[in-house]
Amino acid sequence: MRVSSDPIGVFDSGIGGLTVVKEIIKTLPNENIIYLGDTARVPYGTRGKAVIKKFALELANYLIRKKVKFLVVSCNTISATCLKAIVEISPVPVIGVVEPAVSLAVKTSQNQKIGVIGTQATVDSKIYEKEIKKLLPNARVYTKPGSLFVPLVEEGLGSHFATWQIAKDYLSGFKSTGIDTLILGCTHFPLLTDVIQDIVGPDVTLVDSAKPTAEALKQKLQELNLLNKDSHHSIKILVTDAPSRVNKVAGNFFGNHLPVKPVKITL
Amino acid sequence: MRVSSDPIGVFDSGIGGLTVVKEIIKTLPNENIIYLGDTARVPYGTRGKAVIKKFALELANYLIRKKVKFLVVSCNTISATCLKAIVEISPVPVIGVVEPAVSLAVKTSQNQKIGVIGTQATVDSKIYEKEIKKLLPNARVYTKPGSLFVPLVEEGLGSHFATWQIAKDYLSGFKSTGIDTLILGCTHFPLLTDVIQDIVGPDVTLVDSAKPTAEALKQKLQELNLLNKDSHHSIKILVTDAPSRVNKVAGNFFGNHLPVKPVKITL
Repeated sequence: MRVSSDPIGVFDSGIGGLTVVKEIIKTLPNENIIYLGDTARVPYGTRGKAVIKKFALELANYLIRKKVKFLVVSCNTISATCLKAIVEISPVPVIGVVEPAVSLAVKTSQNQKIGVIGTQATVDSKIYEKEIKKLLPNARVYTKPGSLFVPLVEEGLGSHFATWQIAKDYLSGFKSTGIDTLILGCTHFPLLTDVIQDIVGPDVTLVDSAKPTAEALKQKLQELNLLNKDSHHSIKILVTDAPSRVNKVAGNFFGNHLPVKPVKITL
Repeated sequence: MRVSSDPIGVFDSGIGGLTVVKEIIKTLPNENIIYLGDTARVPYGTRGKAVIKKFALELANYLIRKKVKFLVVSCNTISATCLKAIVEISPVPVIGVVEPAVSLAVKTSQNQKIGVIGTQATVDSKIYEKEIKKLLPNARVYTKPGSLFVPLVEEGLGSHFATWQIAKDYLSGFKSTGIDTLILGCTHFPLLTDVIQDIVGPDVTLVDSAKPTAEALKQKLQELNLLNKDSHHSIKILVTDAPSRVNKVAGNFFGNHLPVKPVKITL
């Protein structure tokens, strides 16, 4: 039995999920949070489903052993490919980032034409089509992988002209679809908002998972009476590999400084 | 005790090392080869040294259990960061790709000014400076990481204008150094030969590890009387993750078709 002062466990293939942690801290400032990023094996988005599932369950089990009260899968690739498997092994409630983003996108779209960009594994999972059509059976959904966005962001080339050109290749096909909403289906992509908006045009609303996931988490905690009542709260950032690069890249996701230093752990 | 008909084990962080296998097959067509690529955890070049060593020893031990007669570390990142640790645990001889490439570069250079591009981990290891100066104490060595080359090649964007621009950022600093030789210190980089040559200019000779490593291996096998005398020989390609992507990308390294289908194994 978990109590409200237990931490929320957030896990991710790497450190992109810190964009979600940032929103959770804003939305739920009293919560204890343990973030776990698999920086030793990132990226997941180009891997096969069985490997992603194996790695994701290792991360989930680590946090379950740490007695978290709730699991947040902040990675789109994991949420898209194996959320069900995580729910099956978890003794505590689990949310992913796909449903909250879909829910917001469906409210945002006026013309029911919604685009999605994500990693190859996320696109291959077809989860966004499925979840959007659950809420809007007549929606038209257009998906496109944007695999190179991940290393481009991690190398700090978000504003490089080369990134703009690669983004143009990935995104210009959306022009002819008439989408009015584009889901940024990877935690790395909000760092490319300016480039993406420039290419898809000002009439397309970009939706990312961080804020709706934090709000969905708050609602679930309220429903389960699990909101932390203590004034004491803490944040831990755990990673499976911590070269100097992780600190640097993690800062970009969090807004140039991390609230705490990442700690290397072994799964 | 190993016999000459035992296979040669070649291992790599991913599938880039197939460029080395291709040269081994050309140079030593009678040999049995087992290639092991850690496609579930690639890339290594952006990770910390301790994690690279842990993963590399897992790969080496797998091949040792398969009773290989020789270990070839076809990955520059592993060769640069932890060859010594592999030699220490291996009951069979081991060669990496750094020494053979250095040996060729030192023979190639007329002015003793040698450039090296590799992954971040390879550059951080400073192994190329060390090995070059063992042979040429007065050499001037200039190194530069080219981390994004790996995903750009894997995504098939080797000829994309964006790749040329990123390469220009990485490489244009070599112009003022006066290097006459540039070591392509990563198995992925020979697939960018045209772009790299265009930027560094026609007077710089590009050196890659594949051919000198195959030749060094042949020499070692001769010295140890371990050349295969049987006419029967086979090639196995093992990978830790085998989504459709691996087949596709592996083909590019091997020259658009693989001699055998990769088989997924668990370490």
